[in-house]
Amino acid sequence: MGNVDLQCGLRLRGAQLAYQTYGELNARKDNVIVFPTFFGSQHPANEPMIGPGMALDPTRYFIIIPNLFGNGLSSSPSNTPEPYGRARFPRVTYYDNIGFQHRLVTEQFGVERIALVCGFSMGAQQTFHWGALYPDMVERIAPWCGSAKTARHNFVFLEGVKSALCADDAWQGGWYDSPPAKGLRAMSRVYAGWAPSQAFYREKVYLDLGFSSLEDYLITAWEGRYLQQDANNILAMVATWQAGDISDNPLYGGDFAKALGSIKARAFVMPSRTDQYFPPEDNEIEVSMMPNADLRVIETIWGHTGGGPGRNPADTAFIDAQLKELLAS
Amino acid sequence: MGNVDLQCGLRLRGAQLAYQTYGELNARKDNVIVFPTFFGSQHPANEPMIGPGMALDPTRYFIIIPNLFGNGLSSSPSNTPEPYGRARFPRVTYYDNIGFQHRLVTEQFGVERIALVCGFSMGAQQTFHWGALYPDMVERIAPWCGSAKTARHNFVFLEGVKSALCADDAWQGGWYDSPPAKGLRAMSRVYAGWAPSQAFYREKVYLDLGFSSLEDYLITAWEGRYLQQDANNILAMVATWQAGDISDNPLYGGDFAKALGSIKARAFVMPSRTDQYFPPEDNEIEVSMMPNADLRVIETIWGHTGGGPGRNPADTAFIDAQLKELLAS
Repeated sequence: MGNVDLQCGLRLRGAQLAYQTYGELNARKDNVIVFPTFFGSQHPANEPMIGPGMALDPTRYFIIIPNLFGNGLSSSPSNTPEPYGRARFPRVTYYDNIGFQHRLVTEQFGVERIALVCGFSMGAQQTFHWGALYPDMVERIAPWCGSAKTARHNFVFLEGVKSALCADDAWQGGWYDSPPAKGLRAMSRVYAGWAPSQAFYREKVYLDLGFSSLEDYLITAWEGRYLQQDANNILAMVATWQAGDISDNPLYGGDFAKALGSIKARAFVMPSRTDQYFPPEDNEIEVSMMPNADLRVIETIWGHTGGGPGRNPADTAFIDAQLKELLAS
Repeated sequence: MGNVDLQCGLRLRGAQLAYQTYGELNARKDNVIVFPTFFGSQHPANEPMIGPGMALDPTRYFIIIPNLFGNGLSSSPSNTPEPYGRARFPRVTYYDNIGFQHRLVTEQFGVERIALVCGFSMGAQQTFHWGALYPDMVERIAPWCGSAKTARHNFVFLEGVKSALCADDAWQGGWYDSPPAKGLRAMSRVYAGWAPSQAFYREKVYLDLGFSSLEDYLITAWEGRYLQQDANNILAMVATWQAGDISDNPLYGGDFAKALGSIKARAFVMPSRTDQYFPPEDNEIEVSMMPNADLRVIETIWGHTGGGPGRNPADTAFIDAQLKELLAS
């Protein structure tokens, strides 16, 4: 990306936007789908939603997955050279990210219209931002398990995640040489309470998933996941998430109702019924202020995780069906 | 209590059960109410539910508040002499606690019938235990914001709380000389996401409570609360909570349905509609297996905290009204 000026006022030099594409851009350049990544993930984690016969069909659409800044592939604390590396990595907002993605789509591919922007969780929040920031360019949006603005409760949940990670002295304010494993394990256990649902644990779904016990699930699925990640990268993504707000930018100046009202795209907004930090209520309020939006609730006991691409076949199939309907509209 | 043998197999010597009474025991000894304490609290925290004209009227009833082991007044890591002090404090279960409370009631006061056992949160869990362990002695029970068995999701929430506290090196495996302040602050922020509700934060109820901002609420109400507490005491109470199960004892041998079915007391079970870790669903299941129980949901956006004695006047009034009805039955 070259040198980019961020919303926080800092300049990131030699910024990198990593992306992956699927399918071919057609001659009319009207078959574009943008599918941003979610927290703690890179583009392969989105791939279970892509395939022949699925809504995101690469034989028909040109699908671009841009990697979120901080995720370890795009510019991140872990891959940015000094003096902006590690703990000094600047706060990057969704506004920054979507601006970069817009440059990718327009400058790299010469695309002027996007058939669909969709995504899960932080990908959903990026989707909302696309709709609000480029209302004349985006024809459809399908955010699932995410909101246009990070709710205060969601913010507090993330305070717990951050605090658990940073309570480990080995974190050293971000200047660690070896990973703060104890803090990463602690935040994993905090996260494990939030991402599934009460009913997920009540029904012992983790056993169906092949874990030997609740404790094995906590160690393998949760500690195992975050131990692989860089602590500063995690914190960079959390910072983006906590600041999420489609109106917190020069275009809308904090007028959230105006930002929601400006989304021209046909929208299917899909919360999970049992999501503990992106609950359906927040989306209901948002949809009521959007001119062209439907609320389609994912009826699942998987909580937030139900929306994870390919995580739960039934929920993935539901989301895929909604995407097909939306694309056909 | 003298020397007490615990369910875990250890013997606590010179065990102390701290309690407070309100009102007078009448001649027939039939006006007794037992009102156990909740997590991180001591008997004064229950007092807002007690007063002339309230259900728990000390001019009419003899109200006993026994302090939970681990709470800093009854035997706890912080007040138990070596070799069983600090990190070596044994795991004390609800079964142990209720056995001690039974000794208090019978040996100290010669009481054979209890008109009502009631309590909030861990106090509710103790209430369920009273009903199951002494079914011929307890006439009524009113547990609110608590369950007869700690749900797995609830267990995982507590794993997050524990992990955040213990991620601080200053905890030193429980052998700290000065408090692990960073860990206490971290667990406070984890807790802050769980105890209220999504709607509590959406509606900014913390401003109505006199805090200047969300961050002031997190620091003052949450960090301020747990910084005052001993870390090992907190962990002792969490251990009791995580192991909560009215059937995990010699009387029921793990047969949860049998334990619930054995509760003869007339029961009003009162979950908060928006409780994130003692959700109404868990109580619904329990009530369906109890022979003489009603589910009375506290319709509140305060989440778990709505049930805290005196916290929210409307919720306290609702609970008080149910207690009056139950006592009149």
